[in-house]
Amino acid sequence: MSIQMRGAEVAKAMKEKLIREREELNAAGVNPCLTIIRVGAKENDLAYERGAKKRMEMIGIECRIAELPEDISQEEFEDAFCKINKDPEVHGILLFQPLPEQLDVEKIRQMIDPAKDMDGMSPVNLAKIFEGDRTAYAPCTSEAVMHIMNHYGIELQGKRVTVIGRSMVVGKPLSMLMLGQNATVTICHSRTKDLADRCREAEIIVAAIGRANHITADMIAEGAVVADVGINVLEDGTLCGDVDYENVREKVSHITPVPGGVGNVTTSVLASHVLRAARTGQNEPGQRRG
Amino acid sequence: MSIQMRGAEVAKAMKEKLIREREELNAAGVNPCLTIIRVGAKENDLAYERGAKKRMEMIGIECRIAELPEDISQEEFEDAFCKINKDPEVHGILLFQPLPEQLDVEKIRQMIDPAKDMDGMSPVNLAKIFEGDRTAYAPCTSEAVMHIMNHYGIELQGKRVTVIGRSMVVGKPLSMLMLGQNATVTICHSRTKDLADRCREAEIIVAAIGRANHITADMIAEGAVVADVGINVLEDGTLCGDVDYENVREKVSHITPVPGGVGNVTTSVLASHVLRAARTGQNEPGQRRG
Repeated sequence: MSIQMRGAEVAKAMKEKLIREREELNAAGVNPCLTIIRVGAKENDLAYERGAKKRMEMIGIECRIAELPEDISQEEFEDAFCKINKDPEVHGILLFQPLPEQLDVEKIRQMIDPAKDMDGMSPVNLAKIFEGDRTAYAPCTSEAVMHIMNHYGIELQGKRVTVIGRSMVVGKPLSMLMLGQNATVTICHSRTKDLADRCREAEIIVAAIGRANHITADMIAEGAVVADVGINVLEDGTLCGDVDYENVREKVSHITPVPGGVGNVTTSVLASHVLRAARTGQNEPGQRRG
Repeated sequence: MSIQMRGAEVAKAMKEKLIREREELNAAGVNPCLTIIRVGAKENDLAYERGAKKRMEMIGIECRIAELPEDISQEEFEDAFCKINKDPEVHGILLFQPLPEQLDVEKIRQMIDPAKDMDGMSPVNLAKIFEGDRTAYAPCTSEAVMHIMNHYGIELQGKRVTVIGRSMVVGKPLSMLMLGQNATVTICHSRTKDLADRCREAEIIVAAIGRANHITADMIAEGAVVADVGINVLEDGTLCGDVDYENVREKVSHITPVPGGVGNVTTSVLASHVLRAARTGQNEPGQRRG
C-alpha cells in the first residue's frame, strides 16, 4: 500500500514554523504584508485568492488585494503596480497570470522588485534559480513539491528524477531545485519519444503537463515516488491530476492526490516567501518597521 | 568507423557567413568591435586571447585588449570596466574568469550591459537562456557544441541527450539549449549514481566534467554521438578530453577530438555574438555608427 503524500499535512507542519517566524518579525516591529494583484475576476484567480487570504490570516500575515479592471491600460496598470512595488509597507507581491492581452507582461516582469517577487517572475529570480542560488524566490508550485518531498523524507541525492513538463512555473525551476539537491534529473516534454520508458526508469516522477490521467500505471516503476502537479477539470466537473491516481497508487511507494496534494502547499510556500522578504527587508535601509 | 567532428571544419563554415555579416555591417557604417578584458597575465587567458584576436582579424572585427594589473582594486576595476561598458564604440565585452580574489565578480556580473555580454555572465542573459529565449547570449562554449551538432547534421529533436556536468558555462546552459531543440535531456554530475548507465542510455553525450579520459568505451552505446568539452592537461603536458577518445571512437558514430574539437569553435561563436550585438545596436538610439 502506498503512502499518500497529503498537502494538508505538509501545510500543517509548515504552519507552526511560519507562525513562529511571523511572531519573531512582529516582536522586531515588522508587520509582514503581501499584496495580491488581480486584473479582472477570473474564477481561477478568485479561488486561489480565497485560499491565499485564508492562509495569510492563519499565519498572521497581512494580505491586501489590489483588484484592477479587466480593461485597464498598460499606463494605468504601471501606475498602480509601481505604487505597490515601491510601497515600503508591502513586502511581497503576487500577480495573477495570465494577464489580459493589452498588458505587456514582459515589461512588468522587468519592473517587479526582485525582493518582492514572491512567485519567481522576475528575470533576477529566474537567473538565481538557474544558478542554484538559494536566495531566489522560486515559483511557489515548484517549491511546494520540494517541501512535500522533504516532509515525507524522500531523499533526492543521487536519485533518478524524471520531470515531465518544461514550463517556467514548474518543470524548469523544479528541475533546477532537484539538481540543487543532487538528483540526476531528466527533463521530458511533449516531444519526448518513449515517455513511458523515461517514466519507468525514474525513482521519482513529477508530472506537470496538464493532461488528465496521462501518466498510467504501466509507465511507473514499482515503488517509485510520484508528485502530481497537474490540475485538470473533467467533463463532469471533477478535478483530476496528470497521473491516473487510482491505478498508479497500487504500484508506488508515495503519491500525491489531486486535489489534496501539491496544490494545498503552494499558499504555505507563498507565506514563507513573504516572511523571508520581510526578514530580508529588516536588514535593509529604507524599510518600514512596525 | 566514426566521423570525427572537427572544430576547424565548423569554424571554416561559420567564417564565410560571419564575413558576409561583417561586410553588411560595414556597408551600413558600423564597425563591429570586441573588447577583451584581462586581469593579470595567466597563460590560459593569453592563449585564448591570441586565438580570439586571430579569429576577429580573420572575420574583420576590431579586437581591443584591456589589460589590467593583477592587484587592481575593486574601485579601479569598476572605473575601467564602466568606461568600456558605456563606450558606444564597443559592441561586445569578454571578461576572462576567474578574477583575482579581491574583485567582486558578483557585482561585475550585475554591472555588465546585457547587450554587450558576449559570454553569458549577466543574470539577464542567464534568465533568457533558462527561458529558452533565443535573443540570449549563451556562454560561447555551450553554443559551440550546438554549432557542431548542427554542422554535422545531428538531429536533436526527441533525442536522448546526457549532459555530464552542471556548470554555468557549459552543463546548465547547454542543457537548456538542447531542450530548446526538443531533446530529452538528462543532467548528470559528480553525485550521479551509475553514471555509466546514464551514458549508455544516451544517443548523444556531452562530457563537461574536467576529468581526463573519465568517459570510457564501456560507458557508451554503439553508434552514439559524443561531444567532449573537457580540456585536461596530463602529467607529460599533453592535452586530452573527458572522453577516452582512442577507445570510444571505435564505437560511436560521431565524436569531437581534444584538442581540435569544441574548443576550436568558441572564438567563432564569440565573433557571431559580436556581430549580433553590433546588428542589434544599429536599431537602438545612441549607438555609434561608422
